[in-house]
Amino acid sequence: MSIEAFLDSIKYDAKGLVPAVVQDADNGDVLMVGYMNKEAVKRTLTTGRTTFWSRSRQEFWVKGATSGNVQRVKGVYVDCDKDCLLVKVEQTGAACHEGYRSCFFREIDASGNETIIAEPLTEAY
Amino acid sequence: MSIEAFLDSIKYDAKGLVPAVVQDADNGDVLMVGYMNKEAVKRTLTTGRTTFWSRSRQEFWVKGATSGNVQRVKGVYVDCDKDCLLVKVEQTGAACHEGYRSCFFREIDASGNETIIAEPLTEAY
Repeated sequence: MSIEAFLDSIKYDAKGLVPAVVQDADNGDVLMVGYMNKEAVKRTLTTGRTTFWSRSRQEFWVKGATSGNVQRVKGVYVDCDKDCLLVKVEQTGAACHEGYRSCFFREIDASGNETIIAEPLTEAY
Repeated sequence: MSIEAFLDSIKYDAKGLVPAVVQDADNGDVLMVGYMNKEAVKRTLTTGRTTFWSRSRQEFWVKGATSGNVQRVKGVYVDCDKDCLLVKVEQTGAACHEGYRSCFFREIDASGNETIIAEPLTEAY
């Protein structure tokens, strides 16, 4: 399958985006979920750095380009329905813009209470 | 925070849904990504079983209700932007309707080639 054929086989949503789960290749922690358009998927596959489409800024976003917290791609996987990607990465520093290693730093209990379960590595940026 | 206040604090998309990454609590494998509406999040938090909103069938979907491949909730986490959930589960059998333990059973290389990296546990259902 050519890369264009693969890119065309993905089921993008109405905005042309597919969610990508980013997982720490070393310890399995889920670090973040970002969104990619077709070109961002292509860049992630071919450049070895995760590239997303920023829904808020409406522009490509190479993770770590400004913060230095880059994600080196170790593996890319697609799910059964081809509407979601999993990207295993080598994460430098914090994945979360709030300074935490993972964006999922709050646990919710059955009563809706939130508990912060991690310490920030750096200040928010 | 009451459970209703937490549910109201989530940023649902235009269809009233939030993606939920489901991770194997034992080995860290990402098993699937499903979508939840507010009520499905509430049921997941309060019943101890993952409940999704099926976008294709437009109905609640208690994972494993028909297949028996239930997901016992071990922890629920919300991300920094409150627009994504992470649910750690104890997975019975296959998470994927194609019979694989994880829906992410295909790896994609830089040329777009797909390689199946797992063996199905059961027949597709």
